[in-house]
Amino acid sequence: MRRHHRRRSSTPSVDFGEDEEDDEEEETSSEARMKCVSCKEDYSSRDAGTCRECYEEASETEEELKREIEDLKSKVNFLRFWAPPDPLHHLHHQRSSSTNTVPFFSDVVLVASHDDENGKSTPHPVPVPANRAVLASRSPVFRAMLENEMEESLSGTIKISDVSYDALRAFVTYLYTADACLDELMACDLLVLAEKYQVKHLKTYCEKFLISKLNWENSLPNYAFAHQHNAKNLLDAALSLIMENMDKLSKREEYKELVEKDPRLVVEIYEAYLSKQVNTAVHKDPAAKA
Amino acid sequence: MRRHHRRRSSTPSVDFGEDEEDDEEEETSSEARMKCVSCKEDYSSRDAGTCRECYEEASETEEELKREIEDLKSKVNFLRFWAPPDPLHHLHHQRSSSTNTVPFFSDVVLVASHDDENGKSTPHPVPVPANRAVLASRSPVFRAMLENEMEESLSGTIKISDVSYDALRAFVTYLYTADACLDELMACDLLVLAEKYQVKHLKTYCEKFLISKLNWENSLPNYAFAHQHNAKNLLDAALSLIMENMDKLSKREEYKELVEKDPRLVVEIYEAYLSKQVNTAVHKDPAAKA
Repeated sequence: MRRHHRRRSSTPSVDFGEDEEDDEEEETSSEARMKCVSCKEDYSSRDAGTCRECYEEASETEEELKREIEDLKSKVNFLRFWAPPDPLHHLHHQRSSSTNTVPFFSDVVLVASHDDENGKSTPHPVPVPANRAVLASRSPVFRAMLENEMEESLSGTIKISDVSYDALRAFVTYLYTADACLDELMACDLLVLAEKYQVKHLKTYCEKFLISKLNWENSLPNYAFAHQHNAKNLLDAALSLIMENMDKLSKREEYKELVEKDPRLVVEIYEAYLSKQVNTAVHKDPAAKA
Repeated sequence: MRRHHRRRSSTPSVDFGEDEEDDEEEETSSEARMKCVSCKEDYSSRDAGTCRECYEEASETEEELKREIEDLKSKVNFLRFWAPPDPLHHLHHQRSSSTNTVPFFSDVVLVASHDDENGKSTPHPVPVPANRAVLASRSPVFRAMLENEMEESLSGTIKISDVSYDALRAFVTYLYTADACLDELMACDLLVLAEKYQVKHLKTYCEKFLISKLNWENSLPNYAFAHQHNAKNLLDAALSLIMENMDKLSKREEYKELVEKDPRLVVEIYEAYLSKQVNTAVHKDPAAKA
């Protein structure tokens, strides 16, 4: 429709009434033209949009929506916390005293209990200070942990396994600010933590980011990852992309690896593909259903 | 413009070319008409709004803004805390034990130190539990109080003077949720607290509410109130309303009271009025300036 309109605008008098499409407008032959108040170009009745009143109403609606966005942004800023201070900046203080000295009213610390696979993370994990009230309000898992006098609550130390120090800090920062600086690796790390600690908002945030980065090259690893961590939206998006390229699928290295490692996931791709084919066939030819 | 358009739509053939206004469109005499895709009514070129392409773009923008609003709302919900539990519900627990038993990781309490003027509030103030981290992140005044080992920080009790228990609870709830259930009295109480503890977001929220309730009857009390509590937006709105009704001003009971109580505020009304008159005169007749 758009290209059509542009062509019309630039060449207003070209073979007008001779298009195949015969719209509901009868008066096109008279070449009625009006000027759009927005783009200032002429348009014919075939390309008519709205009358001025509806245009003005729509503009008002847009203004209202923008005001609502401003209000909500200021609410977000109000509700956002300071991120916890970076303990690496206070490292020598930390060594000589308890976490109570962090000027943050911290009443609990989180510790990455484990180096990453490359052995490159902090050799002696540094605790990340936090507040029980914040953790408990953001995650039902932390809430249960802290309310029920479990070991973590009594000791004031929550061990988080299989996570790098950077990912843990980003995770805690997100709980305070609803913001994270993502790349694909960090989005995966945070999605895993979000799933484990049931922080739905963060999980959705990471899924959206990973979906925006999906391409044919990374669709299979993303599919497997989404499966493993129960990320339905990412799974569906990756699966769609894979199904669009079924002819190339079996040649990929990742495909062969996945067949080795988790053949059921590959079976699910074929099942989804077949089910889609059947549905499309039924849609095209309803008789095929019988 | 709107009424104009409506009239045109319902009586399309009435004395068309005879209006005084002679628009830039010459072809009106041919009575070109198009159908609005939004309201489905016919319109003439005089009432032309947008072409279809611009209409579609605007619709897309609207959808995008709505999606942004949904995202922001979900962010607000994520960042929002549970409101502190109502201690009146736990009153008998409170009496027998410390506030630590409130399942809320509370590490500080606020106490309304003072009954309201009718002597109708809780005779023995009940503490409102809270978290230092939340109070400090929402209010620079609380932050200074709690970070600097002042009496409040050491005792874990913050006395709030001249406030009802209900207003104090609503205040604390707002700090956790960015939401309050307002009537005019509550909006005034919360504005006073917001000003005192420098919670800008709440102050704006209360001002907006009070402005929406402004009328000629309450404009003078609101003007005096806004003056007292440094509420610029409310002050301007109330002053505008007063200046629109200067002829009736001096007959009002509140006027006489204000002259008694704070004549400078009345002087400021007259000064603003005169300055507005002079500006209007200059605007109408720039020569008067000289």
